[in-house]
This record gives sequence, C-alpha cells and structure tokens, in this order.
Amino acid sequence: MSIQFHNLDTVKSYKTLLKRAGDIKVGSFLTAEGIQNSNIDAGGGLSYNYAAKAVDEQLISQLQDLADEQQVIEKYKALLSGTIINTGENRMVLHQLTRGELNGKVVYDGKDQRQFYISQLKRIQSFAHKVQKAEIKGSTGKPFDTVVQIGIGGSDLGPRALYLALENMSTPLLKAHFISNVDPDDANAVLKNLNLETTLFILVSKSGTTQETLANRNFVIEKSRQANISGFNPAAHMIAVTSETSPLAGSSDVLDSFYMDDFIGGRYSSTSAVGGAVLSLAFGYDVFEQILEGASEADALALNSNIKKNASLMDAMLGIFERNVLGYPSTAVLPYSQALSRFPAHLQQMDMESNGKSVSRDNIRLNYSTGPVIFGEPGTNGQHSFYQLLHQGTDIIPLQFIGFKKSQINSDLDYEGSTSQQKLKANLVAQVVAFARGSFSSNTNKNFEGGRPSSLILGEQLTAKSLGALLAHFENKVMFQGFVWNLNSFDQEGVQLGKVLAKQVLSGGDDMDVILKGFADLLEI
Amino acid sequence: MSIQFHNLDTVKSYKTLLKRAGDIKVGSFLTAEGIQNSNIDAGGGLSYNYAAKAVDEQLISQLQDLADEQQVIEKYKALLSGTIINTGENRMVLHQLTRGELNGKVVYDGKDQRQFYISQLKRIQSFAHKVQKAEIKGSTGKPFDTVVQIGIGGSDLGPRALYLALENMSTPLLKAHFISNVDPDDANAVLKNLNLETTLFILVSKSGTTQETLANRNFVIEKSRQANISGFNPAAHMIAVTSETSPLAGSSDVLDSFYMDDFIGGRYSSTSAVGGAVLSLAFGYDVFEQILEGASEADALALNSNIKKNASLMDAMLGIFERNVLGYPSTAVLPYSQALSRFPAHLQQMDMESNGKSVSRDNIRLNYSTGPVIFGEPGTNGQHSFYQLLHQGTDIIPLQFIGFKKSQINSDLDYEGSTSQQKLKANLVAQVVAFARGSFSSNTNKNFEGGRPSSLILGEQLTAKSLGALLAHFENKVMFQGFVWNLNSFDQEGVQLGKVLAKQVLSGGDDMDVILKGFADLLEI
Repeated sequence: MSIQFHNLDTVKSYKTLLKRAGDIKVGSFLTAEGIQNSNIDAGGGLSYNYAAKAVDEQLISQLQDLADEQQVIEKYKALLSGTIINTGENRMVLHQLTRGELNGKVVYDGKDQRQFYISQLKRIQSFAHKVQKAEIKGSTGKPFDTVVQIGIGGSDLGPRALYLALENMSTPLLKAHFISNVDPDDANAVLKNLNLETTLFILVSKSGTTQETLANRNFVIEKSRQANISGFNPAAHMIAVTSETSPLAGSSDVLDSFYMDDFIGGRYSSTSAVGGAVLSLAFGYDVFEQILEGASEADALALNSNIKKNASLMDAMLGIFERNVLGYPSTAVLPYSQALSRFPAHLQQMDMESNGKSVSRDNIRLNYSTGPVIFGEPGTNGQHSFYQLLHQGTDIIPLQFIGFKKSQINSDLDYEGSTSQQKLKANLVAQVVAFARGSFSSNTNKNFEGGRPSSLILGEQLTAKSLGALLAHFENKVMFQGFVWNLNSFDQEGVQLGKVLAKQVLSGGDDMDVILKGFADLLEI
Repeated sequence: MSIQFHNLDTVKSYKTLLKRAGDIKVGSFLTAEGIQNSNIDAGGGLSYNYAAKAVDEQLISQLQDLADEQQVIEKYKALLSGTIINTGENRMVLHQLTRGELNGKVVYDGKDQRQFYISQLKRIQSFAHKVQKAEIKGSTGKPFDTVVQIGIGGSDLGPRALYLALENMSTPLLKAHFISNVDPDDANAVLKNLNLETTLFILVSKSGTTQETLANRNFVIEKSRQANISGFNPAAHMIAVTSETSPLAGSSDVLDSFYMDDFIGGRYSSTSAVGGAVLSLAFGYDVFEQILEGASEADALALNSNIKKNASLMDAMLGIFERNVLGYPSTAVLPYSQALSRFPAHLQQMDMESNGKSVSRDNIRLNYSTGPVIFGEPGTNGQHSFYQLLHQGTDIIPLQFIGFKKSQINSDLDYEGSTSQQKLKANLVAQVVAFARGSFSSNTNKNFEGGRPSSLILGEQLTAKSLGALLAHFENKVMFQGFVWNLNSFDQEGVQLGKVLAKQVLSGGDDMDVILKGFADLLEI
C-alpha cells in the first residue's frame, strides 16, 4: 500500500469523530469487567488501562478508522525501514533501531545502521567494564568512582530521568551527576562536592558545538587547572559522545569518543550511546541492556494495527480525541513512584519539542491544535499541590497515571493497618475514581463534578526493563500523534531563533537591535 | 469604604476589557524608552518588567479600573487586618503577618497574632543556635550535621525550593534533605545515605494527622530501631512544627515543638515556622530573617493602589487579561538560575491550589475561567526542551522569565569572549525578544510568528532577601487574582475526595465500591 500524507482536517474519519464531542462521557467501561477488558499489554511487564477515559466501543472503532485512514502503522513501518520521515532535515529516524530490527535492515551509505549503533554500545560496554575494573583509571592513578554527564536537552533530560529512576534500586558502581545549564552556578554546585581525581566526565553533543556544553567543558578544565593537582590531565578524565563528523570526535582532548548520528534526535537518544555511556558506567552494561529489552518489547507491540492491542496507539488516539475534539490544551503525567521524579520533565521535552508545531510536514500551516502542554510531578506529592485545580478547576486536564504493584526497595512498614506501598497504591486508585466519578455535594465548594479522564500505566515493579518499555511507550505515542497531525515530530526549528539572537547580544556593539539592547541594558550584560 | 464582592462577569470594567481581545498586541512598549518605563520595583532589589507583554497605556488604565472596581487593594488591607477572607473555612489569612505588620495589630482570642508568630520564630532561632553550637546534640552525644524535613505539599515544596535556592551560595551549617512522598522508596532513598546519630528530623504537619507524614515518621523510627544503635533515642532526634492543638504538639515523642496555626495555609507557610525551622537550622536564623525582610518589602509595595507602582498587581491584572480575555490556559515560569530549579514546583502548588476553583467565595458556580496551569523549568535548560512548542506551537502560552545580573557564586570563566553568566543573560534577553517579535521566513517551518507575551522579574543577584521578595511577589499576585475572580484562594476542598476514597480502599472488605475494587485488583492492593 502506498503511503499518503493528509492533514487531519481533510480526512473523512476525523469529520465523523468531531460529531462525538457532545455525547462522549467518562464511565462506559467503569465496571469490574470493563476495567479488566480495558487493559493492553505495553511491553516490559507494563499494561495500559483506559477504562477511566472518555471512551466507548463506538469511539474506539472511530479512532481505529482514523488511525487506519492516517496510515499510522504503515508510517511507523516506513520509519523503521529507513524512509526519510524527518522531512525538514531530510533524515531517517532510527532511534528504535538501537533496540531492535523490526522491519528489515537499514543501510545508509553502505553502512548497516543497526550494526553501527550496536558496535558503539559494545565499545561502551567494554570501556565501562574497564573503568569498573579499574583497568582504566584517572590520570593520578586512582580508580574512577564518579561520572558526570555534561549535556543539555536530550543529552540531559532522558539520561538523567533514567538514572534517577534506577539509582535507588541498583546501587551505582559509579555515582552519576549531571551538568546542563550554562548558568555557572550549575557547574559550580556539581563540582563543589566532587573529587576530580576520581571523576570521569562525559561530553555529550551530537554536533560538538552546543554552546552550553562547550562552556561547561571549559569550566571543568579550568577548575581542574585551578585545583593544581600534581600529574592531573583533564583529557584523561573526559570522553565524548558525539557524531563522527563533529569537532569533538577523536579529539586529543578526550580519552575516547563514542558515536551517534543524525538519525537519532536528542530527545530520542536515551537508548543510543547518549544514554548508554552514562548508564553503563553507572550501573553496568547489563542494566542498560535491560532498558533496551523493555523498549524493544514496546516497539514490537506498537506494530499491531489493532488499536485494542496496541497501547501506544490507543494512548495516542485518545489523546488526539481529547486535544482536537474535546479541546483540552494540556496533559498531566502523574507517576506514583518517587524514582520517576524527573520522568515528567523528560516527557515534557519529548512530547512538546516533537509535536509543538504549527505546520505540516510539507510546511503547510495547520488549522487545528497540535501538541499539548505536558507537566507533572510524582504522586502522592502532587495530591497535596496542584490536584486542587485538576479536581475543581474550570478546565479539564487529562491525566496519565503511572503505578507499580511493588516498591523498588523491599523495605516497608505497616502503619495503621497498611504498608506505605499500599497507601501509595490506594491513593492512586482513589484518584482515578475521584476524577472519573466525582462526588455530589449540595455545598458547591465541596462538589466534585467528575468526568475528568485518566489512563493508567501499571507494572509489577519499576525495573530497568519496565523503564525501557515506559520510555518507548511514550516515544511511540508521540510518533503516532505526529502522523495523525501530519507534522514532522523529529525536527526543532523553534529553537533556532533564540540562538541567533543570543549571539547578537554577545557580540554586542552599537549596531545591536535596539530592543535586544534595551533588555541587555536592564540585565547589564 | 465598604467592601463588596462581585463576580468578575458582573462588573462594568470587565465588560470594557473584553472588547480589547481583538486589538491588543505585543510591542507597544518595545522601544528603548518603553522598556525602561515598564519596570516596577518589586522589593528585595527585584523589579518586574512588562514591556514584552500584550499591553498598551489604555489597557493599563482599563486594568486599573478593574482592580479598583474589584477593590483588590481594599481587600488586601482587610486581609492584613484580620478579616475572615478564607470564607470556606471561616478563617483569617495571616501569612504576611509573619514578616510585618502592615495594617495594624491582629488580635484573636486575646492573642496578638504577630507576636505569636514572632515568638515561635524566636524559639526556633534559639533552638537552631543551640544545635549549631552543639549545645543540643544527638542521643549518642554527637553534634547534628544534617536536618531532614518530613512533610508534604506546603510543608515540603516551599521550604525545599527555598533551601535549594540558597544551598549553593550559603554553605549549609546543617545539610538538609526532604522526605515527602508516602512511596517507601522516597524515605528509603533519603535514609540510605544518612548517619542517624547526627540527623535531626522535623515533622511538619499543621493538623498532626497527615497520613504521609505520620507514615514517614514511623518509617524513620522503625529504621532507627533496626539500626540498633546503642543508646539511640528517636525522640531526641525529632522536632515538630504543628498547631498547638495537634496530637504532635508537645508530644513526648519529640524533642521540642514549634507552632503555626490555622490562619496560615500550607502553601503560604514558608515564612512561618514551617520554613523557619529547616532554613534556620540549615543556614542560621539570620539568613531566614533576610528572606522575611525581602518578603516584607514586597508585601508593603503591594499596598499601592496604582497598578504602575505595584508589581504584584500589574502581574495579576495582566494575567487576568491573558486568562479571561485572550483565553490562554497556562503560564510557564522560566527562571534563568539553576538555583531556582524547584521554584516552579512551589509556584505550581501556590497558584493552582489557590485559584483552581469553580465557585465563588459565596459558593456560586462561576461562568469564567479561573487559575491557569503553571509549569516551568530553569533556562537555558528549557530552551533545549519544551521551548519549541512555546515558539511554534498552536497555542500561545504567556511566559514569566526570572533573571539576575550576577551569578550566586563568583566563579566564572571567559570562553569565546563571554562568561557563562553573560551567556545565560544573553539567552534570556534573546528569548524575550524572540517570543515577542518572532522572525519571518518564507519557509513556514522556520517562521516565528512572535506576539508571544512575556514578563521579566529581574534582580541584582539571587540572595535570601531577593528570594523572599520573589516568594511574596507571587503570593500577592495570586491573592489579587483570587480577589478579581471573587473566589476563595485559601481553602482546598478539592483534595478531600481522594483522601476519603483512599481510606475506603485501605479498609477494603466486600462492601468496597466495585470500581474502586476493580482498580485495586489491578494494582493488587
């Protein structure tokens, strides 16, 4: 079947869908049986439950029609096999290839792309092993016990969220820290408590030219020079993760370089060398490999063209309905696991940078809403914070709960008849139901309207494998939504203008734009 | 003048304001002079600049009319003098009284409220001093070097954000950690790296009955029992911050108790004993006192009835215009300071829990939008993340930038002709201008429409004093907006239903609601 690209508002099934705006309610599947039947395998031991969404059997069938008409599974297969999906930058999109080969070999310029990604991960495995065995040591002869990732955006948020998700459960072999912001207070705060002699830095920048990352690299080098440690050589404490053509690649300023390429976007790079280096050094390569396994399972399940068997697709299509038919402008991500404290920040980038676009993949202005605002904090913390607005505010905000049957650390306490983990889960369940059904009170201030849709991703336990599946679930959801909206989810032209203007401010001079200068004067730049 | 309460959609000046929806644009004040003239003193060395907002002189005058007609300054004065502003709970609202007495004494039940708050802070000062001088030591004779706040919501987010904002600049006398989530992995992760013998825990719960906090207290006690340290007495390692009538008050399970009362809501409690204890123990009382000073300055400036001289009022009224006239559903808070990494999470609670309401203070259903979604991350990090959507997404999201002329730590590096702090500031300025003006490209994918409004809070440096002013600025902004919307910003009935249902789940049994049970079964509670 040939693939065709159509804007959402031109396809027939969307027009049918728009008619459902008035009559759809939360609750059709809120029965014991309905809840059981609304559960889809999401890979890595996870499932996706949509029983508390605004959905009914007819809507599912209509969403299936839309997914079919927009050929989302065909487009996913095309992406997997190396079609140029990133039209703006004329690139393939190959992050799934780091964890499996689901639709044949992808060869570019004579190179088997999967073999290339695997070869880099194997090089990382070997390097990490040597560091952990103290076969590679610091320049003053001490074993490394700390690793610091220097990177920003996709080189920071995903790897950091994954590290924090596992740090507590898998006692790190090397403790990891992250420097991202160009704010000098960031690097100062991280470096303050480190022993440079036992620290390995990872510079992560695909282009090798990211302003923040290069400034922070030099910051670290200058700090180590000031520390005046006899025999210390900064180059022996740095590795690079970059593209083969970048100025950092194979530089004599680094101990070794590991490679990615232009076919993996920053926000999708956690399963490439970008996440692989820091996570393998911190936890061992086997832990990183379990992330890949979980992601691979989710990727394979996402191939199913039946929406009732495809968790990412169901999630994506319900999101389209909420955004474009019901008109909800934001979505909250609410993990009931403290270890996922920074996972919402990663999703915020992944979703908003991918689908926060106003033009089609053919650069035609779109006349419908695209990516929503994504925000969130772990529960139960959020319950004592912004949930007030979620329950009783004037806007309806769809909710994505995430929960696990077991805690990560098997150490808990019975207090007043239940463990903390039971309390955590009871709160999660209570919230799903409270949002869905509400509760009537003749005192309007104590009245809960309900009808606030949520879905629940649940798993046995947050492990490296389920974490990988969780990551891939959202990557694939965002990809599917991009296909339905007919936009390019894989470029980010919106970040360019700020870079250009920042350079103008820094180069200064009398010919600086008067408004830039006005604000620059306020801040005494 | 007698104070009257009217819903927003019933007042005349609002109807006038609605007519401005079509003709207002970002840019009226974007000249060198306009930028200088759009700066309002916000206290603590901060100023609020609105030059890049969608605003003109006529709009300012119309917003002034609305503020006058809704009597926001009169209502603020009434609040300060002890009027029952929190109608739902029949309570006064006195958090500003912790930092100054701006409209006369407030006496309740024969008690001078300011003297009460001050007396508790002085007790904290004395206690913290003794701990820091090792006159109060742990039960095994070792000086305390660590303090752990156990609290959730307002007992966590504000104090944590303030601690992190100062941790790097003011080397802590005692290092602070925070346990909030009922997730046992949270307490386990914090306790893993602590020495119990040198750790002081602060239990913070106004009611003394918060489920998460009591569960975590018992968790800590059980962990210390398991550690089997000879001579260890958990009660000698815990203090309480609570109300005088709570079960925790003066309990033999704690070393000492410090008091707050029902007139200070959790999300407004950072300048009471709730923030006072942990911040005084960590940094010394003098640092906490500077926070109070900064907040006091902002509170006093907020009394000015002239919107052009009142930063919180201008911020509030522009926010009303954006929310109710322009229809923008969310606001991003973007501090260009890594030290403010958790400040947006605090504002998220403060704003969304205060004004995420659908009924008036008289419990009448409102027919207009109230509090927006608040989210944010530090710049420049966010630039490499969700800014894509802010620049080129289909929705317009108002932006609140925060920036400082100097970094906190005077350690910086010149790289490619500028320091990191200069780069940070240049990026901030560049973003303000990029959002406001955009940039035309015939390639629609590289086109920036501009017209995206932002304001900028700027200061010399992020210090304890400017931090206090920053905190109070937003508290007062949110209060003013609540007055304009005619709702009660100081209760939180929306958190109750979840608590009730969670208890039902935990008590279990065959009579549990079938839907609760359906989800409880999924999670194997």
